[in-house]
Amino acid sequence: MRTPDDAIRLRDVVDAGSVKKAVVVGAGYIGLEIAENLKLQGIRPFVLDMAEHALPGFDAEMAEYVEGKLQESGIPVVTGVAVTGIEGVEKLLSSKRAYKADLVVLSAGIRPNTAFLEGTGLEMFKGTIVTNELGETNLPDIYAAGDCAMIHNALTGKPAWSPMGSTANIAGRLIAQNMMGAGLGYRGALGTAVCKLPGINVGRTGLTEAQAKAEGFDPVSVVTVVDDKAHYFPGAGTFTIKMIADKESLRLLGVQVIGAGAVDKVVDIAVTGIMLKGMLPQLADMDLAYAPPFSTAIHPFEHTLNVLMNKINGKFETFTPAEYAAGAAEGYKVVDGCLAPSIEGAPYVELTTVEGPVDGLDPEEKLLLVCNKGKRAYLLQNRLKFYGYKHTRVLEGGISFNDVEA
Amino acid sequence: MRTPDDAIRLRDVVDAGSVKKAVVVGAGYIGLEIAENLKLQGIRPFVLDMAEHALPGFDAEMAEYVEGKLQESGIPVVTGVAVTGIEGVEKLLSSKRAYKADLVVLSAGIRPNTAFLEGTGLEMFKGTIVTNELGETNLPDIYAAGDCAMIHNALTGKPAWSPMGSTANIAGRLIAQNMMGAGLGYRGALGTAVCKLPGINVGRTGLTEAQAKAEGFDPVSVVTVVDDKAHYFPGAGTFTIKMIADKESLRLLGVQVIGAGAVDKVVDIAVTGIMLKGMLPQLADMDLAYAPPFSTAIHPFEHTLNVLMNKINGKFETFTPAEYAAGAAEGYKVVDGCLAPSIEGAPYVELTTVEGPVDGLDPEEKLLLVCNKGKRAYLLQNRLKFYGYKHTRVLEGGISFNDVEA
Repeated sequence: MRTPDDAIRLRDVVDAGSVKKAVVVGAGYIGLEIAENLKLQGIRPFVLDMAEHALPGFDAEMAEYVEGKLQESGIPVVTGVAVTGIEGVEKLLSSKRAYKADLVVLSAGIRPNTAFLEGTGLEMFKGTIVTNELGETNLPDIYAAGDCAMIHNALTGKPAWSPMGSTANIAGRLIAQNMMGAGLGYRGALGTAVCKLPGINVGRTGLTEAQAKAEGFDPVSVVTVVDDKAHYFPGAGTFTIKMIADKESLRLLGVQVIGAGAVDKVVDIAVTGIMLKGMLPQLADMDLAYAPPFSTAIHPFEHTLNVLMNKINGKFETFTPAEYAAGAAEGYKVVDGCLAPSIEGAPYVELTTVEGPVDGLDPEEKLLLVCNKGKRAYLLQNRLKFYGYKHTRVLEGGISFNDVEA
Repeated sequence: MRTPDDAIRLRDVVDAGSVKKAVVVGAGYIGLEIAENLKLQGIRPFVLDMAEHALPGFDAEMAEYVEGKLQESGIPVVTGVAVTGIEGVEKLLSSKRAYKADLVVLSAGIRPNTAFLEGTGLEMFKGTIVTNELGETNLPDIYAAGDCAMIHNALTGKPAWSPMGSTANIAGRLIAQNMMGAGLGYRGALGTAVCKLPGINVGRTGLTEAQAKAEGFDPVSVVTVVDDKAHYFPGAGTFTIKMIADKESLRLLGVQVIGAGAVDKVVDIAVTGIMLKGMLPQLADMDLAYAPPFSTAIHPFEHTLNVLMNKINGKFETFTPAEYAAGAAEGYKVVDGCLAPSIEGAPYVELTTVEGPVDGLDPEEKLLLVCNKGKRAYLLQNRLKFYGYKHTRVLEGGISFNDVEA
């Protein structure tokens, strides 16, 4: 995909009806959106990406969760595979194997079309035009904005490339004013993104946990699965939210949200909080909009923030999905704390019956408490701790997010 | 409506099928939601309120705009009328006239059920229990939260009553922690509310313009009608947003949002901004979530904020809908700046043809520039000013918000 002409050609090829199977190269937002729309046209899409996971800007466990959902929707995503060539019109060669397809769509990222600027004296960085806060380049009276320009990350202050329509519009408006002498500084972007996928939306802003570590923060994170509106309201679903903060300063660093509903709302609250340098306590207990068709009485954003604060304060002891996947729960006995027994081979404990030590569970044992989403396991943890259990952990996101085996 | 039992009785009466016409007393959120749902059941609702306009918490012109939309949806709202009695089951007496109905639903506000606390020594204020930031009452070890408690307004710091499910949940969780010694201060509520109405949603937070004046601020406001997502995306509509700020400090004070879509998102951004004491420039150019199914490249919140900043900086000279309704445009000649002629009797000017003084428009004349939403009139104003027109004003919200006569 390079131009609107390519998009029209793609539509025409699809409309002609001869495409049964398509390979999309690139599992970023555009690639996945294309795959979704091909699927809607009755074509079998297949997405390849050379990265380790889909959805750049998401932590691995979040992206892999989305990959699982896409797979369930009939959109297989294969990662860690580099395309090496295309043979004829029907065969795609890769580092893993050859793929046959009636259509190959390349959406493996973009590069600024800036080669024509060579020799102009414009300061460049990796093909982008370097700009300052005012949008000025190193040459007098020359400004740059949009996919061609290097801006700054609003959180870290470091150079950042944000080839998004939103950034281009915001920065373009700003430099137009600055050309007229307004002197307005652009604080930069947060890498915010949102994408509509089949049955789920995904959104993110700020730093991922991995990025936060790389930037020298000491991040703490939590993954919650929370109601996106009053559970009894038609169309209610869940948000899966990962919230990341700096452990020492408690500064909010980022969120990643997955869900059928208004993930953009949760992202926008986080964007506003991050831009105003909000710490978790300042962002807690805000009077966010509530009515059953829109939200929950304690807002999903606040609910996640509360859980993260409980974790930071030692009131909620957990393994994150990433820790669990990395084997941190080795040596822990899985305890099924679901509403009804759900984990084969694991002892089942009905939360409300716990009024003392539980038969078959030793207070000295390492216990991994698992429920559907994480909430019942948290309540169970509180009870067990009260009765002397010393080594309990809750699996964040429960069986709805993790593949759990007893 | 007093209890869930009343709600069930109401449902049973409706299900029985004999109700054709219903009068709902009270045009607040609950009253209007009931009217909407009665309408959906095939009943003709009729809403009365003794206040001057529906929707407490909205400025008059915004509420009246919603009343017009409700009227179009078959839900007439009559304000400024006090119910004086009910005669038999079919006749409602009021300060204006008698209304016949098969059903009368009272939703004229609530009062805390606190009479039983008389003589306990608890400090009360207008029937509510006075609490401090920790949720403590004046009596040791007695805390209060919920509809029975007086809290604080997070923006003004003054005592505030917020009988909302969200406030009760937030404050309840907080005082539970404070009973355990957490010492967490509750900053209070902003009067945030959101409501689903037929074909439109309404949301608000912070201070109305009228409240801001009463609180001693020098408020400046703007009303915009902006796309709620990419205009070409299926289901795209508009938000009508009123944004209010303090002219001197530029502190964001409140928003009111009307639209078919995610008004709660715009409200939640404003809530976060207000709670973090954001000034307009700090809240500008944020990297909010954009993709065509969700938003516009410059976010509707930011778009409105930009327009308000233009107004404050003298780049956008307007009459607000409230000023217009109050007669401020007396002596101004209405100029039709719509995409196609739309205002009978007004001279029509096609924006892109203005390349000098316009035939029939005197640069010394007072001109009220009107278009559909306000944007074309703004562009027209810029052109006319460039060509020497001295007294132009744009009507905020255009003909889509105001009843305009040439």
